[in-house]
Amino acid sequence: MKTNQQILSLFENYLAQIQYPEEPQQLYSPIIYSMSGGGKRLRPVLLLLCADAFGGDVAEAMPAAAAVEIFHNFTLLHDDIMDNAMVRRSKPSVYAKWGGNVAILSGDAMMIDSFSRLSALPQDKLPRIMEVFTSMALQVCEGQQYDMDFEQAEKVSVVEYMRMIELKTSALLAGSAMIGAILGGASVEDCNKIYRYALELGLAFQLQDDLLDSYGDEQLGKAIGGDILEGKKTCLMLSAMSRADECDRELLRTLPFDKELSAEQKIARVKAIYDKYDVPHLVNQQITLRFDKALSVLDTLSLESERVENLRVFARNLMSRKK
Amino acid sequence: MKTNQQILSLFENYLAQIQYPEEPQQLYSPIIYSMSGGGKRLRPVLLLLCADAFGGDVAEAMPAAAAVEIFHNFTLLHDDIMDNAMVRRSKPSVYAKWGGNVAILSGDAMMIDSFSRLSALPQDKLPRIMEVFTSMALQVCEGQQYDMDFEQAEKVSVVEYMRMIELKTSALLAGSAMIGAILGGASVEDCNKIYRYALELGLAFQLQDDLLDSYGDEQLGKAIGGDILEGKKTCLMLSAMSRADECDRELLRTLPFDKELSAEQKIARVKAIYDKYDVPHLVNQQITLRFDKALSVLDTLSLESERVENLRVFARNLMSRKK
Repeated sequence: MKTNQQILSLFENYLAQIQYPEEPQQLYSPIIYSMSGGGKRLRPVLLLLCADAFGGDVAEAMPAAAAVEIFHNFTLLHDDIMDNAMVRRSKPSVYAKWGGNVAILSGDAMMIDSFSRLSALPQDKLPRIMEVFTSMALQVCEGQQYDMDFEQAEKVSVVEYMRMIELKTSALLAGSAMIGAILGGASVEDCNKIYRYALELGLAFQLQDDLLDSYGDEQLGKAIGGDILEGKKTCLMLSAMSRADECDRELLRTLPFDKELSAEQKIARVKAIYDKYDVPHLVNQQITLRFDKALSVLDTLSLESERVENLRVFARNLMSRKK
Repeated sequence: MKTNQQILSLFENYLAQIQYPEEPQQLYSPIIYSMSGGGKRLRPVLLLLCADAFGGDVAEAMPAAAAVEIFHNFTLLHDDIMDNAMVRRSKPSVYAKWGGNVAILSGDAMMIDSFSRLSALPQDKLPRIMEVFTSMALQVCEGQQYDMDFEQAEKVSVVEYMRMIELKTSALLAGSAMIGAILGGASVEDCNKIYRYALELGLAFQLQDDLLDSYGDEQLGKAIGGDILEGKKTCLMLSAMSRADECDRELLRTLPFDKELSAEQKIARVKAIYDKYDVPHLVNQQITLRFDKALSVLDTLSLESERVENLRVFARNLMSRKK
């Protein structure tokens, strides 16, 4: 079995030898730009770890790992158009650099490319993997649609929000893990458990993302409070909304857009309301709950404990990051 | 064996029973709208005809037929954004009706849906079909990119134009035909011949499209001269450019945008130059050449002549349409 670090570097090597045509240049340059832009490679690493844990051949699973990473990067290209996002991984987004039409078409080509990688997988596993892959891919689209719907919605419940991030963020992680397990030869039961593990982990990850955006350590990089300033309906905001009295609810609605206030004042006042209703603590509880569920599923797999250790390490690494 | 009309109605029945989820409504409504908007169903019908010609099971090939039709409609959703096109099949485009973001995301979901249909195909043929499908899909993207590149280009040759329409239009028809042949159990050699047949036919079809836009019969519907008024670099325009003297070349460049002229005057003057250089005749020669090539490939298939008759009928029907 390989360590997480070994798996990551094997994957980066595999990715580095993928070649794209030179022409048409406007179609393929943005793909190369996007794929070489770094990122944590969480989905392919998890896929390969799962394949490895069940005794599968990591090399044989590489095309699937590339497929989920390319698919993930495709979603970023299109999301950035829809969200009008100019920066991605501290660089100009494809949308900012080449414009909307290029981001649409190069994104389309990336999605096709991700599917084309799957045809190299073992024939007997391909139909099942295609089903899992297309199902998770559709869920990502559904999640993105709900996310956009919520921006316009008057009221969004915490439950609706959790369902949205399950689709938008967790489904891709869970599907990747499951594809790895299938390639590793896991039983249907173990595949479903691996799916559950990654789904819960993805939820914990996204909730932590929300929490760090408002309560992270500023010294570690990213500015704090971006979500608050954008008036985003995050888990924190929706939890606060559901617990606050009418007066505080109105403040939560209006503070982010109050032109009399500085950015710092907006952030401080919204966070004061979060704190008043114990929201950070509640979200932390949810994170812990989801994380513990993810780990406890691993104990029920039909594998010796040491074969599962890398999946525990992956989960802990994922949650120990700062923004 | 089934007639082309029987195949079409079987396909329409199959398509009609496909159900999409109700939620998120903004994601799936545009898909239903797009798929029920009619269209000639050329690609799925050709796929099924090819499967049938080689003795394949039409019912078994239905998921592949649906996949190519859904994929084709996906390309229309995204093309309409890129081309800023408000009308599609005499109705508002998805882009016009719901906006760019919805057209992007619903288009993405359609592409995923098209791939998801493939997993229902016979397992032993799936890897090969995936390769053909993703290859033709990528070619469509390349063709669309060249098409957009050409709009900005100073000079485009007829050869470059032919290559562009081969990618943008013919590849999907040719790939569909080949997938049908694979599903019908055709030999590799016959599959390649079927590909060639549909590729040439697609070129003839697109060239005829260009010709009809300027020389079609106005009584049969669509207004004549749209391409001329848009200053589009069609086969007619590029052929004329390559043969005209400097003075006429300049006229071809400027007439479509001359604000002193009425639409009728622009069209009449550009067509006068086309006629002067015998362009309609030349394009007609190309169409006949491509069409004859397509039909003559059919004679070399390892099939009895009557099994190929439907493919001849398909080709003749395709070319006998008016705009």
